[in-house]
Amino acid sequence: MTTHTNRRWLLARRPKGPVTEEDFTFDTVEEDPPAEGEVLVAMRYISLDPAMRGWMNDAPSYVPPVKLGAVMRAYGVGQVVASNAPGFAEGDWVTAPSGLQSIYRTRRRGDLRKIDPELCPTTWHLGVVGMPGLTAYFGLFDVGQLEEGETVLVTGAAGAVGSVVGQLAGIAGARVVGVAGGPDKCRFLTETLGFDAAVDYKADGVQEALAAACPDGIDVFFDNVGGPLLEAGLWLMNDHGRVPLCGAISQYNATALPPGPRSLLLAIPRRLRIEGFIVMDYAERYGEAVPRLATWAREGRIQTRETIVPGLENFPAAFARLFSGDKLGKLMLGV
Amino acid sequence: MTTHTNRRWLLARRPKGPVTEEDFTFDTVEEDPPAEGEVLVAMRYISLDPAMRGWMNDAPSYVPPVKLGAVMRAYGVGQVVASNAPGFAEGDWVTAPSGLQSIYRTRRRGDLRKIDPELCPTTWHLGVVGMPGLTAYFGLFDVGQLEEGETVLVTGAAGAVGSVVGQLAGIAGARVVGVAGGPDKCRFLTETLGFDAAVDYKADGVQEALAAACPDGIDVFFDNVGGPLLEAGLWLMNDHGRVPLCGAISQYNATALPPGPRSLLLAIPRRLRIEGFIVMDYAERYGEAVPRLATWAREGRIQTRETIVPGLENFPAAFARLFSGDKLGKLMLGV
Repeated sequence: MTTHTNRRWLLARRPKGPVTEEDFTFDTVEEDPPAEGEVLVAMRYISLDPAMRGWMNDAPSYVPPVKLGAVMRAYGVGQVVASNAPGFAEGDWVTAPSGLQSIYRTRRRGDLRKIDPELCPTTWHLGVVGMPGLTAYFGLFDVGQLEEGETVLVTGAAGAVGSVVGQLAGIAGARVVGVAGGPDKCRFLTETLGFDAAVDYKADGVQEALAAACPDGIDVFFDNVGGPLLEAGLWLMNDHGRVPLCGAISQYNATALPPGPRSLLLAIPRRLRIEGFIVMDYAERYGEAVPRLATWAREGRIQTRETIVPGLENFPAAFARLFSGDKLGKLMLGV
Repeated sequence: MTTHTNRRWLLARRPKGPVTEEDFTFDTVEEDPPAEGEVLVAMRYISLDPAMRGWMNDAPSYVPPVKLGAVMRAYGVGQVVASNAPGFAEGDWVTAPSGLQSIYRTRRRGDLRKIDPELCPTTWHLGVVGMPGLTAYFGLFDVGQLEEGETVLVTGAAGAVGSVVGQLAGIAGARVVGVAGGPDKCRFLTETLGFDAAVDYKADGVQEALAAACPDGIDVFFDNVGGPLLEAGLWLMNDHGRVPLCGAISQYNATALPPGPRSLLLAIPRRLRIEGFIVMDYAERYGEAVPRLATWAREGRIQTRETIVPGLENFPAAFARLFSGDKLGKLMLGV
């Protein structure tokens, strides 16, 4: 009987503020071969997402909190290593809600989505044609209702979602302004990704720099970070502007509730629509977006960047890079 | 030559915080008879609206600030006292963007809207079938997209807009919860206006009282006040809830910018749509709403209350009652 060694990260306690190694337990277990109807997947890459920080809290949200002692929730791509179920054979590439572990065992075959490794790099299924790309697509076009010639501001612009938002906005004929941390990332936005302007939020005078970068105001403000940058962007909104709220990474580690944006008071005179969304609500329409995203990415009209940290065991330190900004594009673990 | 004595309130300086008598100049001028194409209207009632506080500030908004030395902007109903223009005769009742004065002279006859004094009390054109009623109608049904069986929370619920919002929501088959100041107003909401529950924001334990009054959460939160009550209501929003932002009267006299609602962070996991609106954007559709509002009001399905302060000269003290809450329903001046 062939067993598979499964290395796993379990949630040991609820983090207060930034995640530490002590919030988790790393262990290994031997996985038996799949029972009737089961599939075993050897994970190759596991996505590190800001949303994971929220799932660690004991608070009601759009998905239940991760239970203490359970494998930490995560998504990844991998290959079937053993199958006792129709439709899946050893070697098949799939995306899976695997959790933070090297071997994923499931009998919910609907959770596995087969992918074609010839179509594009398999890691893209965690980025431009996966959740981040889909989030960008539906947030910008559906929630944001972007029209040609408008100005788009996107925060977290060098990240997995933000970089796609900006490039999609460019494809749609908008003026694109991105906010990122540090001159290197800002240069990356304008020189590599084709943004019209970039603002370094770590520099002085962010409000003035934003105003200078958006001389005609902002029509769609796609916000990934919340906090002071959300407040700053709202001041520049045009009448009837749309604000898709995608994330608030600046606040996910807060131990006390930070105040909301003072500039919210502009919502009434400027008739702003501020709307939170979750990409999973658009699941029925993924089939519309995936081929478009894949085509644009293959054609190079959407440039993608990945930061792959090797070694599942490096999860806590790698996860911290989401919040420090020490990464470019999609952050993931090589298992 | 018959002249008409015009008593006027001019904006003398920009108020800081609450309005004081010193922010205005009261004077009288003699108005000559109307020139060719002009109409003179003797104002009978002038509406006192929270929005007027914003118009006094030197800040860009959806309408320009009132100029220093100019008659303060206001709306009212009156009767033509002299006409040198087709279509208007002495005695005709009209609504007019008259400003805070007893005689309104205009050659922009499109600004005058004739009303039938037999149809309903003329003051209703400043309330239930005027801007407040129209604001309630479009905010609740268009921005709020209210559906039968949902729960509506409305702040400023005993005011000109809020009282109509709650009654319209009741007509639409919603559960209606109102927030008002003091036990008398709360009793008025439940006993006279038929609200399902009322919460006194001046009492202790507002957050708990709101939660108890909304056991199934809130689907549409029509906010007139902003500030702590906006924050409190947002905590209770259901998934896909809508938040029409109509006013923020708790903040209009603030001299420093108050923080925004901490609970805004729920917008993402709960997919909230928070949307500011201005009733004038719906001007093309007033004709749809006015007959409905008038019918419901005449039938008593919308109860109306008015607080009429006699004497144009009492404007500053009367205006302060908008913010202290010392009034019920629509506040106006008898000229």
